[in-house]
Amino acid sequence: MTDFFRDIPTIEYRGPGADTEFAYRHYDPDETVMGKRLEDHLRFAVAYWHSFAWEGGDPFGGQTFDRPWFGGTMEDAKLKADAAFELFALLGQPFFCFHDADVRPEGDSFAESRRNLEEITDYFGTKMEETGTRLLWGTANMFSHRRFMSGAATNPDPEVFAWSAASVKACMDATQKLGGANYVLWGGREGYETLLNTDMGRERQQAGRFLTMVVDYAKKIGFDGTILIEPKPQEPTKHQYDYDVATIYGFLKDFGLENEVKLNIEQGHAILAGHSFEHELALARELGILGSIDMNRNDYQSGWDTDQFPNNVPEVALAYYEVLRAGGFGTGGTNFDAKLRRQSLDPEDLVLAHVGAMDICARGLKAAAAMLEDGGLEAARAERYAGWDRPENAAMLTSDLSTIAARVESDALNPEPRSGKQERLENWVSRFV
Amino acid sequence: MTDFFRDIPTIEYRGPGADTEFAYRHYDPDETVMGKRLEDHLRFAVAYWHSFAWEGGDPFGGQTFDRPWFGGTMEDAKLKADAAFELFALLGQPFFCFHDADVRPEGDSFAESRRNLEEITDYFGTKMEETGTRLLWGTANMFSHRRFMSGAATNPDPEVFAWSAASVKACMDATQKLGGANYVLWGGREGYETLLNTDMGRERQQAGRFLTMVVDYAKKIGFDGTILIEPKPQEPTKHQYDYDVATIYGFLKDFGLENEVKLNIEQGHAILAGHSFEHELALARELGILGSIDMNRNDYQSGWDTDQFPNNVPEVALAYYEVLRAGGFGTGGTNFDAKLRRQSLDPEDLVLAHVGAMDICARGLKAAAAMLEDGGLEAARAERYAGWDRPENAAMLTSDLSTIAARVESDALNPEPRSGKQERLENWVSRFV
Amino acid sequence: MTDFFRDIPTIEYRGPGADTEFAYRHYDPDETVMGKRLEDHLRFAVAYWHSFAWEGGDPFGGQTFDRPWFGGTMEDAKLKADAAFELFALLGQPFFCFHDADVRPEGDSFAESRRNLEEITDYFGTKMEETGTRLLWGTANMFSHRRFMSGAATNPDPEVFAWSAASVKACMDATQKLGGANYVLWGGREGYETLLNTDMGRERQQAGRFLTMVVDYAKKIGFDGTILIEPKPQEPTKHQYDYDVATIYGFLKDFGLENEVKLNIEQGHAILAGHSFEHELALARELGILGSIDMNRNDYQSGWDTDQFPNNVPEVALAYYEVLRAGGFGTGGTNFDAKLRRQSLDPEDLVLAHVGAMDICARGLKAAAAMLEDGGLEAARAERYAGWDRPENAAMLTSDLSTIAARVESDALNPEPRSGKQERLENWVSRFV
Amino acid sequence: MTDFFRDIPTIEYRGPGADTEFAYRHYDPDETVMGKRLEDHLRFAVAYWHSFAWEGGDPFGGQTFDRPWFGGTMEDAKLKADAAFELFALLGQPFFCFHDADVRPEGDSFAESRRNLEEITDYFGTKMEETGTRLLWGTANMFSHRRFMSGAATNPDPEVFAWSAASVKACMDATQKLGGANYVLWGGREGYETLLNTDMGRERQQAGRFLTMVVDYAKKIGFDGTILIEPKPQEPTKHQYDYDVATIYGFLKDFGLENEVKLNIEQGHAILAGHSFEHELALARELGILGSIDMNRNDYQSGWDTDQFPNNVPEVALAYYEVLRAGGFGTGGTNFDAKLRRQSLDPEDLVLAHVGAMDICARGLKAAAAMLEDGGLEAARAERYAGWDRPENAAMLTSDLSTIAARVESDALNPEPRSGKQERLENWVSRFV
Repeated sequence: MTDFFRDIPTIEYRGPGADTEFAYRHYDPDETVMGKRLEDHLRFAVAYWHSFAWEGGDPFGGQTFDRPWFGGTMEDAKLKADAAFELFALLGQPFFCFHDADVRPEGDSFAESRRNLEEITDYFGTKMEETGTRLLWGTANMFSHRRFMSGAATNPDPEVFAWSAASVKACMDATQKLGGANYVLWGGREGYETLLNTDMGRERQQAGRFLTMVVDYAKKIGFDGTILIEPKPQEPTKHQYDYDVATIYGFLKDFGLENEVKLNIEQGHAILAGHSFEHELALARELGILGSIDMNRNDYQSGWDTDQFPNNVPEVALAYYEVLRAGGFGTGGTNFDAKLRRQSLDPEDLVLAHVGAMDICARGLKAAAAMLEDGGLEAARAERYAGWDRPENAAMLTSDLSTIAARVESDALNPEPRSGKQERLENWVSRFV
Repeated sequence: MTDFFRDIPTIEYRGPGADTEFAYRHYDPDETVMGKRLEDHLRFAVAYWHSFAWEGGDPFGGQTFDRPWFGGTMEDAKLKADAAFELFALLGQPFFCFHDADVRPEGDSFAESRRNLEEITDYFGTKMEETGTRLLWGTANMFSHRRFMSGAATNPDPEVFAWSAASVKACMDATQKLGGANYVLWGGREGYETLLNTDMGRERQQAGRFLTMVVDYAKKIGFDGTILIEPKPQEPTKHQYDYDVATIYGFLKDFGLENEVKLNIEQGHAILAGHSFEHELALARELGILGSIDMNRNDYQSGWDTDQFPNNVPEVALAYYEVLRAGGFGTGGTNFDAKLRRQSLDPEDLVLAHVGAMDICARGLKAAAAMLEDGGLEAARAERYAGWDRPENAAMLTSDLSTIAARVESDALNPEPRSGKQERLENWVSRFV
Repeated sequence: MTDFFRDIPTIEYRGPGADTEFAYRHYDPDETVMGKRLEDHLRFAVAYWHSFAWEGGDPFGGQTFDRPWFGGTMEDAKLKADAAFELFALLGQPFFCFHDADVRPEGDSFAESRRNLEEITDYFGTKMEETGTRLLWGTANMFSHRRFMSGAATNPDPEVFAWSAASVKACMDATQKLGGANYVLWGGREGYETLLNTDMGRERQQAGRFLTMVVDYAKKIGFDGTILIEPKPQEPTKHQYDYDVATIYGFLKDFGLENEVKLNIEQGHAILAGHSFEHELALARELGILGSIDMNRNDYQSGWDTDQFPNNVPEVALAYYEVLRAGGFGTGGTNFDAKLRRQSLDPEDLVLAHVGAMDICARGLKAAAAMLEDGGLEAARAERYAGWDRPENAAMLTSDLSTIAARVESDALNPEPRSGKQERLENWVSRFV
Repeated sequence: MTDFFRDIPTIEYRGPGADTEFAYRHYDPDETVMGKRLEDHLRFAVAYWHSFAWEGGDPFGGQTFDRPWFGGTMEDAKLKADAAFELFALLGQPFFCFHDADVRPEGDSFAESRRNLEEITDYFGTKMEETGTRLLWGTANMFSHRRFMSGAATNPDPEVFAWSAASVKACMDATQKLGGANYVLWGGREGYETLLNTDMGRERQQAGRFLTMVVDYAKKIGFDGTILIEPKPQEPTKHQYDYDVATIYGFLKDFGLENEVKLNIEQGHAILAGHSFEHELALARELGILGSIDMNRNDYQSGWDTDQFPNNVPEVALAYYEVLRAGGFGTGGTNFDAKLRRQSLDPEDLVLAHVGAMDICARGLKAAAAMLEDGGLEAARAERYAGWDRPENAAMLTSDLSTIAARVESDALNPEPRSGKQERLENWVSRFV
């Protein structure tokens, strides 16, 4: 046991009237909702990077956090892992997620970095067995090191492409070894700073081939999890190729991967792309590529990724509503890709940020389930499109312009608008949140 | 002759030192650039709607313009057409564009509206023959009338779908009759105000079928122009399905239309979607779907579509650079989907707004051509990716993760970053603009 | 009685389990909160313009609403008033707000318009007496008519300045006659479309003089309500002089009016200026100029004023928290400057939009009161600044750089950062919302 | 001599046809414009921090630059200074700017840091004397170190206030010693991350008192430069108190400092606040608080501070137009608070970024001067407001509402709108840029 979280009690469900901050008020993992335990619905995960590797810097200031594991040795890495698994246990978090660079020291060569990763993930494996914590997804950090400054798979330098391929292989091997439920690719540097020096067509081909190799490798090693891409429109670059759900869908179609790859969707990234979170989820659901979510919010008035813990039940409920409409997460889950504010220095802050977020998500999921079970929204939606059920209308979808135009004139069609009832539907939602 | 533009002289090229506002300083239609006349490069078009149908309103105020044709009769429509063709002649504009609703009175029935359209477009036909002005594209206004408030092709009411199909047929017929070079669809209401009442999957299918019928109809009538979709992310709705180039590409792929349909890209819409104009053009070029442009800018500090005449040569030059890299416009052109500021009341304002915009575009196109002919940018781009020409690197694109990973370790690859030279390339561009 | 709202029952409080849409679930006007009736806390008002004068247009489409009073006669105006007061009664709304242009036909001359206003406001007076509905504020519409296209008080044309002065006088007279609690100025055209034709310094002086005359006139006629300015950063213009709370404060200071004028703050306008609503309220509170609120939200993904009814309790609660910290509204209140979506065609939509919004506000106000009574937030805030209570620290605020610098070195000060506890405070708030 | 810039020639003016990147094409320091040397108009400065202290990191990646002085010793600091003064000489830059933290190692105590600052600024002094390079402004970095994470002057911890006061004193002493022309305060942490833990009123008082002490100290030591505040709305914090020009003006008025303090205005910060650069400059000019500028642009599609070198002449020209209208810079100048893109690794990049930017500014300044000398814009502006010159109109500004209202009716005023001519004025500007 490290003493990082000493004096902090294990977090348990105590109900809304709990007399301490250190309790769940709404998240009871064993509560049954729509026939499934809440824990199995939500599939929470801690993000290793923000919670254990981030030092508190921002573009205008450096490290604020002071963690005992902030050295560069394997010993530090193990101390970090010890603390991390203590947090998972304190919270009763079923899952965690990590990048290679979060968990192991960078070596002097690729091979050394790989061996470091193998060693630390073996260490994880033992802990996972002891504690029951599982891996929601693994991923490779191909954006922090300076070698990736111009991209990973889309780098003008083929040796960086090679390094990236080797990195993903190593991380997929680790994910497979640890029984990870998914493997994620976030292409933070897969984009450009300026079009002036960029060959977008070529880079797009590189990205397509790279992803195809990832899918092939997953099959080769018998990985039965899901390959996920995480959209983000920009930041760190001016433009990232994985802009949003719709953009990635076109990309997948182009390379014939739309049945092989799904998406990990983040609220903050949706906002940066000009969408609501529920839009991105609904679209992915309709396109059959909804995989998993990063449940962390961006500040609506800030133009960059603030990665804050969620705190707004009405918004979270609409997100889970789309997840439930999709039949739930499958292999996916709710990852908190959320970082403490850099002024939140204390171990208590780290624990309680997760506690609050989990409670918010529990409230949101339960509200979403109640909305689905009530059925009011789906009934209103069905009613609105009911005209399409009539045969002469349905037939138009397999007709042609001339035939339809003739009908308009012969029947003297003159459609009258009907109310969209937006406010009434919003009132209906408000009953549940 | 109307007397709307009386006392305004025909605009001619006089060079940068012209001693009057009423002259082109940079746009000489007969100037040869890269072996082609400037007029044939730029293919300018006046937008009928903003220049002749818009009354000067905004969300907080009503009509400011006072035009003699602002009645609802066919006689008004003809007076409007007279004035419009006078403007085309004054400017020497080779093309114009129109929606049905701009040019004809709305009838009491679809059939009457159609007949009105036929009558006025016959009137256009005569004028076009007399003046030589051509039609860059026609389109149907399926967003202004209240029947379209919940969408056209994507309306929950199938009768609106029918009306829309009939409208597009009528407008395609008119476009074909007038020898139009393209037919455009802008889906201003094809989207949603709230997800709560929207079945996105169903609406997407409606849109896909609709577009397929449009493509089929074009073939049926022997239309040899290009079908163009115009992306816009939002406004008037919260979310429009034709969000941006990448989104439409995925949609086209899904319905197998990526070789049948191209895009009409507008600077202002690019901005609203979070992209630079040149990004959208470059992406469309790479995807093979660059068709035509709307060359009107949005104010960078306003969050809505301001549709202003262009006035920034460095920006315009980067846009035309992408057009020239694509081999020029083909059937497309440079439409000014630009409206006067609502305080610009005078006929002179309408003329001079176009004069200034055409000069800006001429400067931009000539700068773009000079940049291409100089070749500096393309040479720098080629040099940056040159590593991919080496066989062992090119081979990676048909290899697999394991093989590449083995190479990384066996060759002890350790790629060193190289400068992206952004500022130097920007300096290079500045020499030309 | 008109029959516009026929079959719609009077809305009464039925509690959260009400079995109908047509009831308040949370707004019980007689509920006592912090020693005051809920109605007296919230002081709800219907906005005449959106609810009765707006026709449903947007920049890309025209009228969607079909109201029997949409003619231009005084008879129409009275029918509109009849319907409006019926809505007030249905909802039990204690207040309403209006512009001159919402309520009376525009005359052929200023004098005729003024007489029309006098006639219709006499008509209002009778109805107010009968029903008990009161006027929260009156205001002059100096942005819709084309004469105001270049500004009202800040117009380059002094005759428009004159017209504006006469308009405000007439509206203040009407407000005084009807016992209005406040008089509001929103300067929608007090700004510019382009700096190129604008003399900002001169226009600022015009605005300052104008406001001074308004304040003087209020005193002259014995108006004991509050003069309120409503900030908005842009839209319809590129830049409006009343940008946000901080900007107006500087303006008031410059003209010595900071004790004479307060602000009417709108959520949507705060968002457009890059602020949260609670920021603007808190700042106005600190500066002593918090007057009243417009409780209508903007869509976070839309770059223009969407003026939607509120639907997010956590956000609304933070707003009312600032109002309660300020000691409540005084003469101000909660105006719904909210418009139905243009697809919400039915009378029921108009009623239920207000019902839902009032319930949201009631929940928010009650949550805010509970937060204040709990005191947790204020205790945490006080604790964070407690160091300033020590005499040697407080003394620094009246000291000088040299003395303080000497202390830093002599005492070898080396302050250690302490946690800002943001997530814990957010968790605390979540208990109440 | 270091060898960092070896093989890079001194940059000289060679005219537009120069056959090398390493020359000025437009910036001839000795060219006379409006009776003053170009160098004396523009007063260029290199920003020490971005050019010599920044390591190339961003929120998603670490150091990319590899500079020989990136250690923490005083020897490194001197090597950095050697290279910096070599750059100033290469460029012929007349000025530079620095923060304490850019130039000296952080000590173990405040006193040690102060002594380090004194030592390195003595070193600067010698170099300045040798080379003739002057100090445009000095400033204290009160945002990077973790002690400032919750603010400097506005910190809840009074000891941080004390540290900040001591820091500013030390930096003002250094600035005075080096003959600095201005002293700048940018309050990057003077704001909040969350209102929940913030006492805005108290923090505002702290800031006001702090600034007053700064002004007093400047007088005490006989500093005859200008005290400048630099506005920025947000980033790193959610909200910064020095939001924009208008906000700071209100603040200065409140503390009676509007005649003591001016502003240093940055294009990028203007953009983040929702303004054009020329707006902020024009407003500051009108308010009498225009001091100096940071001439670095933000990417219009990125929501954070990108601090890029300028590259758009039309925009830069409008900025200098406002500077020239204000009578020029006075003690201020043109600081490039611009950083290389993090992929621009080479010493050449650093040199040429400045060369390109200086050429852009020279073109902008010369265009602005030509516009002023032509006089067209000012003549149009005067004409637009000419009605105010008539006595009966001017008199209204000292009249009252009743009198003016009587005039409107008695004279039956009915003002007709006149064209604002925006496009024609834009065309006029285009002739010069």
